[in-house]
Amino acid sequence: MDAAEFRKRGKEMVDYVADYLEKIEKRQVFPDVEPGYLRPLIADCAPQDPESFEDVFKDIEKIIMPGVTHWHSPYFFAYFPAASSFPALLADMLCGGIGCVGFSWASSPACTELETVMLDWLGKMVNLPEEFLAGKDGQGGGVIQGSASEATLIALLAARTKTIRRVQSEQPELTEAEIMGRLVAYASDQAHSSVERAALIGAVKIKNVPSDDTFSVCGSALKKVLDEDKAAGLIPFFFCATLGTTPCCSFDKLLELGPICNKENIWMHIDAAYAGSAFICPEFRHLLNGVEFADSFNFNPHKWLLVNFDCSAMWVKKRSDLIGAFKLEPLYLQHHHQESGLVTDYRHWQIPLGRRFRSLKLWFVLRMYGVKGLQEHIRKHVRLSHQFERLVLQDERFEICAEVVLGLVCFRLKGSNELNEALLQSINDAKKIHLVPCHLREKFVLRFAICSRTVESTHVKFAWQHISQLATDLLKTWEQNHHQQ
Amino acid sequence: MDAAEFRKRGKEMVDYVADYLEKIEKRQVFPDVEPGYLRPLIADCAPQDPESFEDVFKDIEKIIMPGVTHWHSPYFFAYFPAASSFPALLADMLCGGIGCVGFSWASSPACTELETVMLDWLGKMVNLPEEFLAGKDGQGGGVIQGSASEATLIALLAARTKTIRRVQSEQPELTEAEIMGRLVAYASDQAHSSVERAALIGAVKIKNVPSDDTFSVCGSALKKVLDEDKAAGLIPFFFCATLGTTPCCSFDKLLELGPICNKENIWMHIDAAYAGSAFICPEFRHLLNGVEFADSFNFNPHKWLLVNFDCSAMWVKKRSDLIGAFKLEPLYLQHHHQESGLVTDYRHWQIPLGRRFRSLKLWFVLRMYGVKGLQEHIRKHVRLSHQFERLVLQDERFEICAEVVLGLVCFRLKGSNELNEALLQSINDAKKIHLVPCHLREKFVLRFAICSRTVESTHVKFAWQHISQLATDLLKTWEQNHHQQ
Repeated sequence: MDAAEFRKRGKEMVDYVADYLEKIEKRQVFPDVEPGYLRPLIADCAPQDPESFEDVFKDIEKIIMPGVTHWHSPYFFAYFPAASSFPALLADMLCGGIGCVGFSWASSPACTELETVMLDWLGKMVNLPEEFLAGKDGQGGGVIQGSASEATLIALLAARTKTIRRVQSEQPELTEAEIMGRLVAYASDQAHSSVERAALIGAVKIKNVPSDDTFSVCGSALKKVLDEDKAAGLIPFFFCATLGTTPCCSFDKLLELGPICNKENIWMHIDAAYAGSAFICPEFRHLLNGVEFADSFNFNPHKWLLVNFDCSAMWVKKRSDLIGAFKLEPLYLQHHHQESGLVTDYRHWQIPLGRRFRSLKLWFVLRMYGVKGLQEHIRKHVRLSHQFERLVLQDERFEICAEVVLGLVCFRLKGSNELNEALLQSINDAKKIHLVPCHLREKFVLRFAICSRTVESTHVKFAWQHISQLATDLLKTWEQNHHQQ
Repeated sequence: MDAAEFRKRGKEMVDYVADYLEKIEKRQVFPDVEPGYLRPLIADCAPQDPESFEDVFKDIEKIIMPGVTHWHSPYFFAYFPAASSFPALLADMLCGGIGCVGFSWASSPACTELETVMLDWLGKMVNLPEEFLAGKDGQGGGVIQGSASEATLIALLAARTKTIRRVQSEQPELTEAEIMGRLVAYASDQAHSSVERAALIGAVKIKNVPSDDTFSVCGSALKKVLDEDKAAGLIPFFFCATLGTTPCCSFDKLLELGPICNKENIWMHIDAAYAGSAFICPEFRHLLNGVEFADSFNFNPHKWLLVNFDCSAMWVKKRSDLIGAFKLEPLYLQHHHQESGLVTDYRHWQIPLGRRFRSLKLWFVLRMYGVKGLQEHIRKHVRLSHQFERLVLQDERFEICAEVVLGLVCFRLKGSNELNEALLQSINDAKKIHLVPCHLREKFVLRFAICSRTVESTHVKFAWQHISQLATDLLKTWEQNHHQQ
């Protein structure tokens, strides 16, 4: 394919994507396919000779679309949102066209420098303390990671290295392996599974801190496990606080936890993957109070800030903590400007070496929406979740299971877990909307997350009526079966 | 921006990207900017109100392009190639439009299933042993990682878990920390820095195995360090063989190394990040002989197979080894089909949780080029590197520093490292072409890598004439200075 054909096909693809997103509402949100559906539909091996664009293009509707879960359908209420917007799509086209691999400043200066400045913009939007910004000569700064999992892992590894060095200087008789064997990380019992996974990768112990009855970790709960573990000779070194947990969007109590971590030499990382985007609204910014005690902070604009996946924003107070944990410098990656204080080589800040020009997406979205446009988007979602909450509360067969703070509503039928499992099953079998569940303590709970950029009040109302009707049908058969037994 | 405006702007962006790539030759390959150039050119913070697309669009040439290193210029001979092709760009547009996050089968079945089948296609193209393919009920299979660094890390972590479990079952008196403290990983002294970094992350020792005078690791070299380490009570568990090292594209001797690793219960991972793409040509496939002894294999279609970054292909013989190392299963990620043998949840195969629909790029490229088209691309690059090699050899001031096997030529002026450093400096100061150096043993060497999809014989000839002229100029002043001293 030459440039001339790309011009033609590229424009057809722009129309296809525009059509797809404009009419996504008409597609069934969750596919009908069974595992293994795709393999019989395509050849056993790659063709020897080139096929035409037309041949490939017509297979999109025939082979791909029947197996797609439509994350941007206004009937998609599962997981958390995956951001999507037209400015971000445009920026990604540019990113692909430039196609640089920005592992060092020299490998494409614009790629590195725009990222640093965009992370400063974003940091200011959520009113991060100055220390987290790069500015012209700051010690902190931001970086785009691929996912919150990577941010958590990077923070944990930096904390591990920092702690090993400190303990070795205080107790030179201890070997690195001995120190490693005594390190403990902590996170809420509500924290995302990626925190436990980070500890697994980093080969350190991790312990759950029990959350309170609002599913938040408070200072006394952390203090208690720390005291026990220190008494047992362990070395607490890392605490991952969550703002907006995945099960129910609860918030750990930073203002209590932060001072404890600071006092105990524990790295506090804040995972606000979903909720972080909301902090651009002054009315939600208080949820981030206490960030001043943290060593690192992360949230995902690719979840709720209209920047397409992947774009996970991470800030640290001391960039030397990250770089110190990883820096390796072969000659083919060294460059002339390396020792300048202005230069950032982002490969030292992340797991992979290569990186795309992802800051273009942030630049396009922040400018073409403006802060006000993005605030509107957040506020609409929060408004819609409260609309759903009210509908649930008006139906006395149902209960709300956790405070609705942002765009997530946790709810269930009053009754057994089996009953609620059956309700979720009937919702997902009908495939008119799509939800996923969670456990809150011993309860099986349904999560209703406002997700799509184009979701409106009518969709939420439809979803509720649909759920309510399925509940009525279910309760009828359920009671019959119950009576028969 | 609504869909109607996206149609308009998207088509403008398609033209911009087509223009950029068609005329890239006219741009200076390496930018003139100094560190910190970008910040003064843009606002201090994000705008409150939306800006127009035009405003953003005109800043691309004004702010971004002056700081871009043009990786797809036919005058770019640095690092290794970053792949770019029009079919891959089209696929990425579709990937962005669908915008699913494929962490599990249910989160978008097509995303998972196309990936599994595409990795089978690709595996067959390089003639991987059957065991590495997923097929309908295989124990192996492939996955797309973001980078070779991640593939190495994942392999090392899987090997670590597997070894700890084995040793614990053989010697139950050892604690996990004790075993960890005795684990050793190995790689060539020519291996990429990401291998050392993987060991650093995984908190295990790593040792360099000395390469021979062709910069390859042979069996006896590995055997020697293994024997010493085992005698010292250490537990060798992981060897990363490199096919196509970054400094000089040398090849470790798999046929000698593989049987040793198998006998010693050492996980052999093969990092063929750059060279792997060449194995689709029968005349280069012999370089992969011995892969049958490996546990995992990785190469980057995003380097040399015309699939835009990021697309790093990794295969394992036993998927249970990867999954076993990481599997964590919270309720919100469980789904109905989970226990079916047909279902792959790729989040267990990688560091991040989320993943884009990257297999679309492979699908588009493999079909629209066909195997033959891709073979042609590889063969053209290899032909051009040999052209450059011949030019170097005809000039007796220069020497070739390592065998030219694929698209990389390592060369230098006969003489001191200082002289060659000065030559590289004058090449990169002139900015007509772009190169990076390496060290081979004690020698400072220039790397000439054939990179761009559109590079032709004329560009290579131009590059050589330019280098040759700069060398003449340099040698003149160099001798004068030398005489003066």
